[in-house]
Amino acid sequence: MNKTRLEAFSDGVLAIIITIMVLELKTPESNDWESVKHIFPVLAGYLLSFVFIGIYWGNHHHLLHTVKKVNSRIIWSNLNLLFWLSLIPFATRWIGENDFDKISVAVYATLLSVSGLAYYILQQSIVVHHHFQDKMKDALKKQSQKGIISLFAYLTSIATAFIYPIISEIIFVGVAIMWWCPIKILSRQWRNKNKKTALKTECGF
Amino acid sequence: MNKTRLEAFSDGVLAIIITIMVLELKTPESNDWESVKHIFPVLAGYLLSFVFIGIYWGNHHHLLHTVKKVNSRIIWSNLNLLFWLSLIPFATRWIGENDFDKISVAVYATLLSVSGLAYYILQQSIVVHHHFQDKMKDALKKQSQKGIISLFAYLTSIATAFIYPIISEIIFVGVAIMWWCPIKILSRQWRNKNKKTALKTECGF
Amino acid sequence: MNKTRLEAFSDGVLAIIITIMVLELKTPESNDWESVKHIFPVLAGYLLSFVFIGIYWGNHHHLLHTVKKVNSRIIWSNLNLLFWLSLIPFATRWIGENDFDKISVAVYATLLSVSGLAYYILQQSIVVHHHFQDKMKDALKKQSQKGIISLFAYLTSIATAFIYPIISEIIFVGVAIMWWCPIKILSRQWRNKNKKTALKTECGF
Amino acid sequence: MNKTRLEAFSDGVLAIIITIMVLELKTPESNDWESVKHIFPVLAGYLLSFVFIGIYWGNHHHLLHTVKKVNSRIIWSNLNLLFWLSLIPFATRWIGENDFDKISVAVYATLLSVSGLAYYILQQSIVVHHHFQDKMKDALKKQSQKGIISLFAYLTSIATAFIYPIISEIIFVGVAIMWWCPIKILSRQWRNKNKKTALKTECGF
Repeated sequence: MNKTRLEAFSDGVLAIIITIMVLELKTPESNDWESVKHIFPVLAGYLLSFVFIGIYWGNHHHLLHTVKKVNSRIIWSNLNLLFWLSLIPFATRWIGENDFDKISVAVYATLLSVSGLAYYILQQSIVVHHHFQDKMKDALKKQSQKGIISLFAYLTSIATAFIYPIISEIIFVGVAIMWWCPIKILSRQWRNKNKKTALKTECGF
Repeated sequence: MNKTRLEAFSDGVLAIIITIMVLELKTPESNDWESVKHIFPVLAGYLLSFVFIGIYWGNHHHLLHTVKKVNSRIIWSNLNLLFWLSLIPFATRWIGENDFDKISVAVYATLLSVSGLAYYILQQSIVVHHHFQDKMKDALKKQSQKGIISLFAYLTSIATAFIYPIISEIIFVGVAIMWWCPIKILSRQWRNKNKKTALKTECGF
Repeated sequence: MNKTRLEAFSDGVLAIIITIMVLELKTPESNDWESVKHIFPVLAGYLLSFVFIGIYWGNHHHLLHTVKKVNSRIIWSNLNLLFWLSLIPFATRWIGENDFDKISVAVYATLLSVSGLAYYILQQSIVVHHHFQDKMKDALKKQSQKGIISLFAYLTSIATAFIYPIISEIIFVGVAIMWWCPIKILSRQWRNKNKKTALKTECGF
Repeated sequence: MNKTRLEAFSDGVLAIIITIMVLELKTPESNDWESVKHIFPVLAGYLLSFVFIGIYWGNHHHLLHTVKKVNSRIIWSNLNLLFWLSLIPFATRWIGENDFDKISVAVYATLLSVSGLAYYILQQSIVVHHHFQDKMKDALKKQSQKGIISLFAYLTSIATAFIYPIISEIIFVGVAIMWWCPIKILSRQWRNKNKKTALKTECGF
């Protein structure tokens, strides 16, 4: 099995997922301010999902970069991940239609949990099938740790959604930042105000 | 005619088919449990179609891998297959809107039959145009046998849809499993409980 | 300007055009025969458009294969063609919603005319920018002749749409067949019943 | 990080954006002239957006061509640009549904401004990360100047939208022409009627 075609197919699916979400955005019924202001939460949800898919695309790219041999298990783990990610436009629309209410935020949080788990499974499928060097193993282990932290954060956000949905949303943004810029940099940043350059380089500001 | 572009176009179409189905998923009208539980059969239909397209993508990839020369007949057989597969999101929506009732399941089963036939035709078009080695011929013959078994299973499922749609659905899942893991492994597994490793490797668990 | 990216972008757009049409197909309101039979004309329209886009994809591929240098004019002629082809799903939906009535068929015929013209312009842009060998020139000249015949056929079909839409539809199918299999073969076939092999090879039956 | 995959993903997203807009086009309710004539402004909006995305695709291609090394900042600047461009189908639908009224034109103009700014940021991210030769620097500087002129034109068009939306639309067309053909050629053309060849070559007529 050819790795290139696996990458091309995944890229195609991710590009479609990230773009078709815009079809779900409803235009306001009338053009007065009352109607127009309702699109801001919907836009915020769209932005959040866009960033999540963007992060998955970036990490998925790095992960597949390590792959040398493809087997059935990797193909199916990959399709499994794409399946859950493909539901994100659906969950985003649900959130938008219900103005971030409890149930819709809990569904969104559940979907993020399952997607995170699917990503973890894909990574494990790749690790089992390869003999990586120590440096690579360390890098992948750190990724796994991040994945487990995210999973716990998402599971917490399912629970908080039923009490204060806003807390779940803060958790979503927090996880996005954690994946965006390596956490080490962030914690170093917290202690040392001079390391702004590192933050700039790693997080792309 | 360039094989790469044929692959790229097919991959693009399959990636779009597998992803746009999510646009067909309707969010529940209200957020109480009564409404929410209606999305589970719809999700099940989406999952089934996702797996079928995924299997077609994998097999299509392997089949095109054997192609060395492309002629008109292969191009049109391929477009013919893509045409029927492109109707799967439509049939999936139909099933979802009618909660797996008789007519909609029969339509879905018919579509799977015709898609299976189209895949068989594509394979024949490729075989006629090439001089394969014996090993490859055997592999393709086994694929053909699987294709014919699937076709009979699908035709049966059209009939059963009018009596008990649930039987048709079981047939769909059965055919998916047959394509997912090679049948030899499965039958061996049946006789010998120790061959779990083979099952694991081939089916990607 | 890189030819590969021009091809990739065009392939992407054509793959999306050919696939999103399925989103326009409406499922029947109820599952009795009266409702279900209404989808057949819609499906016929979908099939027609699918075949037209498929033919454009095949010919576009062959045409771009001849390109060695890309300039602004070729890029814009190509975008012009893609623009008109992107309207085909819209016209197909229109035809489907109005059961092939006069206006909708006339709109569809107009769109096919303009697309045919845009293809002709793209071919001219490529010819002007290259110094082809005589053999290639001849092949492109034959393509141009076919293009001009199609254009006249389409213009006729706009007129006939207002009198008998069915005549326009027959013209559409006729043009599709003309592009599908080279005409020379067809006319030879007409005279000589033994040349079935040639027909088989060229038209891909 | 691999530049090829960045290009492929961007191309995919742009191809989808440019094509899914057609799903937003509503067919007329009845087939009399009164209803049909309402689709012309909608089609005009679609054409405008198609041309803008086409211009972005062309320029984006040239810009990424200069990239040799990819870092986080370039990836995120690119995703930022794609995010704003992905909203263009949404704004186009809004314009179409409100027949180019004040609010919808102002929203469209705002979106074009932000997209222009995002493109400028992407270019800066690339410039900072590379050591270009003088010739390339000059070319990119000219692009920046064009970008700043566009930005001022768009900001003006937001203001004029509230007074005469038609002025904003003229500005949109003007900016499109400015990006389409290099301005130098246009101004030379103004002075010298003989330079038609240059115009022809550069603008692709």
